[in-house]
Amino acid sequence: MPAYDQIVTDRRHARRRALLRAVLVQSGVDALLVTDLVNIRYLTGFTGSNAALLVVGTDGEDGPVGPDSAGGSDGSSAARRRGATASGDLDPRTRFCTDGRYTTQSAVEVPDLPRLIARPCDLALVRLAPSGAVGFEARAVSVADHGALLEAATQSRCAIDLAPTVDLVEGLRAVKDDAEIEALRRACAVADRALVELIAAGGIRPGRTERQVGLDLDQRMRELGASDPSFDTIVAAGANSAIPHHSPTGAVLATGDLVKLDFGATVDGYHSDMTRTFVLGEPEGWQREIYQLVQAAQAAGRSACRVGATGADIDAAARDVITDAGYGAQFSHGLGHGVGLQIHEAPSLARESASIMVPQMCVTVEPGVYLPGRGGVRIEDSGVIRADGYDVLTQTSKEFRVLA
Amino acid sequence: MPAYDQIVTDRRHARRRALLRAVLVQSGVDALLVTDLVNIRYLTGFTGSNAALLVVGTDGEDGPVGPDSAGGSDGSSAARRRGATASGDLDPRTRFCTDGRYTTQSAVEVPDLPRLIARPCDLALVRLAPSGAVGFEARAVSVADHGALLEAATQSRCAIDLAPTVDLVEGLRAVKDDAEIEALRRACAVADRALVELIAAGGIRPGRTERQVGLDLDQRMRELGASDPSFDTIVAAGANSAIPHHSPTGAVLATGDLVKLDFGATVDGYHSDMTRTFVLGEPEGWQREIYQLVQAAQAAGRSACRVGATGADIDAAARDVITDAGYGAQFSHGLGHGVGLQIHEAPSLARESASIMVPQMCVTVEPGVYLPGRGGVRIEDSGVIRADGYDVLTQTSKEFRVLA
Repeated sequence: MPAYDQIVTDRRHARRRALLRAVLVQSGVDALLVTDLVNIRYLTGFTGSNAALLVVGTDGEDGPVGPDSAGGSDGSSAARRRGATASGDLDPRTRFCTDGRYTTQSAVEVPDLPRLIARPCDLALVRLAPSGAVGFEARAVSVADHGALLEAATQSRCAIDLAPTVDLVEGLRAVKDDAEIEALRRACAVADRALVELIAAGGIRPGRTERQVGLDLDQRMRELGASDPSFDTIVAAGANSAIPHHSPTGAVLATGDLVKLDFGATVDGYHSDMTRTFVLGEPEGWQREIYQLVQAAQAAGRSACRVGATGADIDAAARDVITDAGYGAQFSHGLGHGVGLQIHEAPSLARESASIMVPQMCVTVEPGVYLPGRGGVRIEDSGVIRADGYDVLTQTSKEFRVLA
Repeated sequence: MPAYDQIVTDRRHARRRALLRAVLVQSGVDALLVTDLVNIRYLTGFTGSNAALLVVGTDGEDGPVGPDSAGGSDGSSAARRRGATASGDLDPRTRFCTDGRYTTQSAVEVPDLPRLIARPCDLALVRLAPSGAVGFEARAVSVADHGALLEAATQSRCAIDLAPTVDLVEGLRAVKDDAEIEALRRACAVADRALVELIAAGGIRPGRTERQVGLDLDQRMRELGASDPSFDTIVAAGANSAIPHHSPTGAVLATGDLVKLDFGATVDGYHSDMTRTFVLGEPEGWQREIYQLVQAAQAAGRSACRVGATGADIDAAARDVITDAGYGAQFSHGLGHGVGLQIHEAPSLARESASIMVPQMCVTVEPGVYLPGRGGVRIEDSGVIRADGYDVLTQTSKEFRVLA
């Protein structure tokens, strides 16, 4: 989590909410109840663990949300005291709710919205929703919470029709704004730097366990400014490197091993994702062979990352290289995925993916070849789709590298 | 996450599933589709990120689950090859499903269940469910996933009636078995030891930032065997100590500050939770006063942790001490909560809690007094409800302590 003193208050969240309003109009809902915490962070900057957001889509309306905007709110006065609103005024078409634990934090992080302190947040906001179709996030609302929402809607003075929606905010998040790309760049730089330091310190060497290597790498990322690793760091040595997802164990790195590291840093909420594979000691022919194959496939995948390509096109470009070499069955997962506020988000680069690349999408490219019982190689970058191709954010060399 | 080489295969998961079967019979459902990953871990030992579990409640039936138990499963043969089943035979009334990333891991972690490798896991298992009322976890299933489940149930050869359930497994989890209490004890010991080392190394001293102290504490817990901190460690100095939930910032610890640390270690999936508050340099009268008050309230809360008491009784025992001293409004949260595979779970110790204490429940006791703009004190233990009272697992001294 970013600390209070790192928060830059600007208009990025208001811009994102304006984009969402346009989406709501197209989606046929009059308002959206946002309960997914990642989406709330995207739309407001709030980083706490409990909140809800009501965004009213009607462009024409400038009045405050709902029939009762006064009760219980500490929002406007606190924000004005702090003088922290870059935009000057509170956005009257959006209502933010959190609970009493986050009164202070939300005043700092969300200075530009009227805030309500209440619990449960989703019910408090449904009671303030205007008449009409109020969308909710069908992937983020449980069947149990939906029952409570329906009851609250029924009790409202307004005629509220709760409507399931899917991926409205997630669709916006797939295309990053400049501030997001800069955050991803910082996250990738931390991971790059941590790996450079780990190697320079002899951290990847025979005799250490996978777990020791993982802990070492994680600590270096934290010391370099990561709030956390992006996900449970994968360190897989020897035969374990043939397991695509592998948790570090007490297995000891040995001369002759392939060592695969898949890891990332979380910086300001954004997740980098990178995989590099090394060889300890003199490489065998098969190790060099599959490395070079994956390297070529990864280069083909990066080259295919062009505006207008589908996720399936890009996946195929890399996969064909591996399939043509006879290892198609040993590349058992999709080529890549979007990265941002979540480690896995839209768009998907995979066989069935119809997602069309547009500028400022951020995706990974990560082919692999896994030979069970022997070892595996994966090479992965995070990067940005640009008008002129794939802008790689993870800078660590992908050359075949032997570590002593 | 526990590593493969740490897994002890025993009958504890089979015992828990047998308990669940008894609950299912009482709840009027013929089977339960478990999709909450924490509940799946509790019932099977599986630690991966994608799985589902179908538990058939009918005690009499010994045959395999569902109309088609062969397709796609690699379960029984792999488990037999490993010879890892303590119980000898696979449990035929439970079906486990995960995806291809976890084929190897699930064979090791879940040797005693027939396993299906398929995606999406929940839909694959609903297709194998027997006719009758099949419960699903209404808090864990999203509205979107519920729609897909309904469709799969409709297409089944069996007459399946999907029924929402709430907290069936969570209710079992509130009462810990011995293995769980030992895991919690280890988690508490790691946190205790890390704090002792942090203090001995002068880690809590004027000049350091909250963030430095938190990072230092987290690293010590990892080095001592925690897979992770139990939650985002709270280090709150000076006026920040009056914020119940506070993320460490760049704020610098200064002489005269109260410093509140609320943190825990995750060991084998179990979460410890402890808060201690210290003073830097010569304490002021009000600091000593609220410390002693919270200390007395915490002792009263621990004493009230008796078999048969309700969560509300225990909360009141501690709260009354604070209220009687005139600080009732400054104790703004519940007294405690269950801890285990999650940092917050049943039972709740709070004003409205009707939960009745039974032996082997594990709960925190954590009163606090917070004076906005000045500072706050919270003292928290994790412990076990026993026939003879509250067995404290967190061993660090709660005496008023001045750090140089």
